[in-house]
Amino acid sequence: MDRNLTLLTDLYQLTMMNGYFLEGKKDQRVIFDVFFRQNELITYSVTAGLEQVIDYLKNLKFTQSDIEYLKGLNLFDKDFLKHLESFRFTGDVFAMPEGTVVFPGEPILSIRSNIIEAQLVETAILNILNHQTLIATKAAKVCYAAKGGSVLEFGLRRAQGPDAGFYGARASIIGGCSSTSNVLAGKSFGVKVSGTHAHSWVMNFPTELEAFRAYARIYPSAVLLLVDTYDTLNSGIPNAITVFKECRERGFEPVGIRLDSGDLAYLTKKARKMLDEAGFPNAKICASGDLDEYLITSLKNQGAKIDIWGVGTKLITSEDMPALGGVYKLSAVYENGKIIPKIKLSDNRVKITNPGFKTVYRIYDIDGMAQADLIALRGEVFDESKPLTIFHPVDTWKKMTFEPGSYKIRELVTTVMEDGELVNALPTLAEISEYAKREKESFWDEYKRLDRPQYYKVDLSDGLYELKKNMINKIRNGK
Amino acid sequence: MDRNLTLLTDLYQLTMMNGYFLEGKKDQRVIFDVFFRQNELITYSVTAGLEQVIDYLKNLKFTQSDIEYLKGLNLFDKDFLKHLESFRFTGDVFAMPEGTVVFPGEPILSIRSNIIEAQLVETAILNILNHQTLIATKAAKVCYAAKGGSVLEFGLRRAQGPDAGFYGARASIIGGCSSTSNVLAGKSFGVKVSGTHAHSWVMNFPTELEAFRAYARIYPSAVLLLVDTYDTLNSGIPNAITVFKECRERGFEPVGIRLDSGDLAYLTKKARKMLDEAGFPNAKICASGDLDEYLITSLKNQGAKIDIWGVGTKLITSEDMPALGGVYKLSAVYENGKIIPKIKLSDNRVKITNPGFKTVYRIYDIDGMAQADLIALRGEVFDESKPLTIFHPVDTWKKMTFEPGSYKIRELVTTVMEDGELVNALPTLAEISEYAKREKESFWDEYKRLDRPQYYKVDLSDGLYELKKNMINKIRNGK
Repeated sequence: MDRNLTLLTDLYQLTMMNGYFLEGKKDQRVIFDVFFRQNELITYSVTAGLEQVIDYLKNLKFTQSDIEYLKGLNLFDKDFLKHLESFRFTGDVFAMPEGTVVFPGEPILSIRSNIIEAQLVETAILNILNHQTLIATKAAKVCYAAKGGSVLEFGLRRAQGPDAGFYGARASIIGGCSSTSNVLAGKSFGVKVSGTHAHSWVMNFPTELEAFRAYARIYPSAVLLLVDTYDTLNSGIPNAITVFKECRERGFEPVGIRLDSGDLAYLTKKARKMLDEAGFPNAKICASGDLDEYLITSLKNQGAKIDIWGVGTKLITSEDMPALGGVYKLSAVYENGKIIPKIKLSDNRVKITNPGFKTVYRIYDIDGMAQADLIALRGEVFDESKPLTIFHPVDTWKKMTFEPGSYKIRELVTTVMEDGELVNALPTLAEISEYAKREKESFWDEYKRLDRPQYYKVDLSDGLYELKKNMINKIRNGK
Repeated sequence: MDRNLTLLTDLYQLTMMNGYFLEGKKDQRVIFDVFFRQNELITYSVTAGLEQVIDYLKNLKFTQSDIEYLKGLNLFDKDFLKHLESFRFTGDVFAMPEGTVVFPGEPILSIRSNIIEAQLVETAILNILNHQTLIATKAAKVCYAAKGGSVLEFGLRRAQGPDAGFYGARASIIGGCSSTSNVLAGKSFGVKVSGTHAHSWVMNFPTELEAFRAYARIYPSAVLLLVDTYDTLNSGIPNAITVFKECRERGFEPVGIRLDSGDLAYLTKKARKMLDEAGFPNAKICASGDLDEYLITSLKNQGAKIDIWGVGTKLITSEDMPALGGVYKLSAVYENGKIIPKIKLSDNRVKITNPGFKTVYRIYDIDGMAQADLIALRGEVFDESKPLTIFHPVDTWKKMTFEPGSYKIRELVTTVMEDGELVNALPTLAEISEYAKREKESFWDEYKRLDRPQYYKVDLSDGLYELKKNMINKIRNGK
C-alpha cells in the first residue's frame, strides 16, 4: 500500500482529537477493541487484513498539504495542527494472526495508545479489517461448499473499486481459494493466477472451431476452452473434443472446458459423459456464473460434474452480507498508570461491550479440535493441570467442564506492535493460508455447515464476567 | 489515482492479448460497449467513475517489474512482452458524462481501439464504472427518499476497502449527498466534510454533561451533540438543552442533536418537542444508524422529525445489491476500415447484445422532461422538425409518437478521448453533481419512486432494430 492514507478517516475523529488536545488529554492512554457482533449470516469469521493495518499504521504522516487542508476547514486549533506535523503512530497493537477463526464479541485487534492516535486510526482499521475479514469469511464458506474442489476467485470486474478487487483477492486466498484472476494481486501477493479466454475470443474468429484451434496452438499445455459462446452441447463441447484430439495427436493432454451459462447441473453431466466417451476422462470441467456457497451446494447435491469453481461477484462483494459491521470500542483508559475499564451499555444486551484489557483463549480437546473460546482479562491464569469449567450465561446456559489431561488452551491474541514498532516479521500470504487451513480444520463440520450450524460456545472468563457484572450493577445503582 | 493499475486486469485478458498478437491481429480495431442489464432493483442508474477511467487509461504502462513478472508466468511470447514495453492506450472513448441518468442496455461507455488495448482495459473499466455507478445510483435513491433533507455519507468504516470508501464518497456526492465524513475524499475532491463526535467522546468524560460542555467550548459555532450514549430522553437531550442554553448565553446558536440508535420515529418526535419547548425550534435533528432509502421512507411516513440523515453501511456498500453487473461486450470489428457489427446471442433474450457502433438519444417534451430513450447507430439522423415514432418490440409494445414542435432530442454520448488523448477538460465534481441534479429533475417522480416505478421506454432506432433483426435471422438461418 504505497499511498498516504492518513486522512482516510472520519472528520469526527479529527474534531475529537483536536478536542482532546485542547482538553489536555493528548497523552491519555486508552485501549480500543475491534470486534464483530452476532449476525445470523456469520457463525464464524476468518480474520484478514492485519498486514494492511500494520502498513497503514507504520506510514501514518500528515503532509504539509494535509495540514493546509485541515487548516482551511477552520475547525482546528493551530497548536493542534502543529502537533500533527510530527504525528506518528507510537502505540501498541495486539491482534489475532490473520487466518484465525474468530467468533462474535472476541477482540480481534486492540489498540493501546494515546487517545489522539487511537482516535485517528479507528476508521481505517475498521475499513481494512471489516473488508478483508468479510471476504475471507465468505471465501471460507464458498470453499467449504466446494468440499475440496478448487475455487478460483474471478470477481475483480464486479468488486467495489480497485482495492476491493485487490485486497479481496488476497482475502479470498486466506479464506481458501486456490488462485485469482487478478494479475496485480498475483504479482503483489505471490499468488497463483488463472484464466484462459472469454467469449469475445471466440466471437473474434470466423468460427468457434478456429478460435479453439488458435488457442490450442498458442497454449498447447494449457488448453481449457470456454464452450458456451454459441451452443454448449451441439457446438462448444464437440468443437472442444475435436481440438482435444488434435492436441493429443501433437503430444499434449488438454486441461478441460469451462461453462459460464445455462443449467450447470444438466450441462456438466452431459459434458462429463461426452468427454469421457471421447476418451478424455481426465479433462476437467470448470464452471462459473453467479456461483456462491448455496448454489455450489445445490449443484453438488444435484450431482453436477464440476471440478473447478470460478466464483466472482458473489464472493468479491460478499453479496448476501456486504458489510461485516465490525466496531471499535473504548474498553479502558489509563489513569496514573492504572487501567480503568470502560463499558458501553445499551438497551440491546448484545451491544453491551466487554470492559478492560482483554485477550482470547481457545480450548482444544486432546485431538486438537476446538471446544470453546474464553474472552478473558489480561493477567488471568489458566492452568491446564487443573479442571476448567466455563459456565457464564453469556449466550446460553451450556456448561462445559474440562478435566486435566483432556484439554489444551491456547491464547489467540499476540502482540504485533510495541511503541509503534513491529515485534515480529509478518507471515507471508502462503503461511497465512496454511495457518487458516489448519484453523478451519480444527473445527468440526457441524460448526461450519451453512444451514443452522451448531452453536460454538464463547464464554467470558471468571475475571471478566465479574468485572462486567459489577460495572453494570454499579452504573445501574449509581445513576 | 497515483497508483499504477496496469496489471489490475484478469489474466485471461493477457492470454487473449498474447493470442491476438501471435495471430497477427494486434492492429485490428474493435468496439466494445459497457452497459448494465435489467435488474429488478435498478430502474435507472446515475453514471459515475468516468474521470477515474480516464485517469486509468492515461496512466497505463507496463513497468519492467510488471514485464518480469509476466515473463515468469511462462505463458507469454517474448515478442509480445517486448510489445508491452511500449504499450500505451491509443484508442477512442465515447461515454455519457458522469451524472447522466441511464437505463439498462444503453452503452454508457464505448472503447474503440486495437484489440490488444481493448482487451486489457475491460476489467478495470468495469471495476471502476460498476462500483461508482452503483453507489451514485444508491445515493440517488437514498436522497430521493429524503425528499430534500440533507443526506450525509458516513460509510467509510464499512466500505469494502479504502477505495470503496474514497470513490464511494465521490459517487455518493454525484448521487446527491451533500457531504461526506471521509476527510481524504473531502480533500481530494473538494467536497464538504461533516462530523462532530462519537460515543467514545462522551464516555471519556466523567459525565455526559461535561463531555457536551467541553465540545461546546471547543466548537462554539458547530454544536451538534450526540445524545444517545446513555439515555436519549432522560439524559442526552436534557443535557444537550442545558448546554444549548449556555451556548446561547454566550451568543452562539446551537446546531442541533444527533441520534444513532433506538426507535428513530419515537425518539425524534419526542426530541423535537423537547427542543421546541426549550426554545430551540431551529435546532436540527440528525439521525443515523442502518438507514437506507426504505427506512428513510418509513420514518418519513411515520412523521419522524429528522432534518439530516447520516447514511453509512447500506449506502457505501449498496447493501441490497452490492454489484451492478455491468458488462463489456464486443459490438463491432473493423475490416479494411469498414465496420463489421458483432452480436452475442443467448438463450436469454435480454442477454442478446446490440450490434454496431452506437449512441444514445433522449427525447424530451417541450418542458424538458424526459419521455423516452433511443439506442441508435452512429450516423442515423433525427430531425426535430419531423414526427418521430418509436415502436419496436424491445421491452413492451408501447408506441410513442412525437410531433414536430412537441419534442427535443439530445445525444447523451460524447467523445471523451481520441487517439488516447482527452478531447475536452473533465468537469469538476461540483459541476458533475449539478448536472446530475438536473438530470434527475428531468424525470417525473413516477419513474424514480422506489415502489414499482413507471416503465421508462428505451427503444432501438429503426437502423439498429433492422440491423439486429437481420443479424439474428442470418445466424438463425445460416447455422
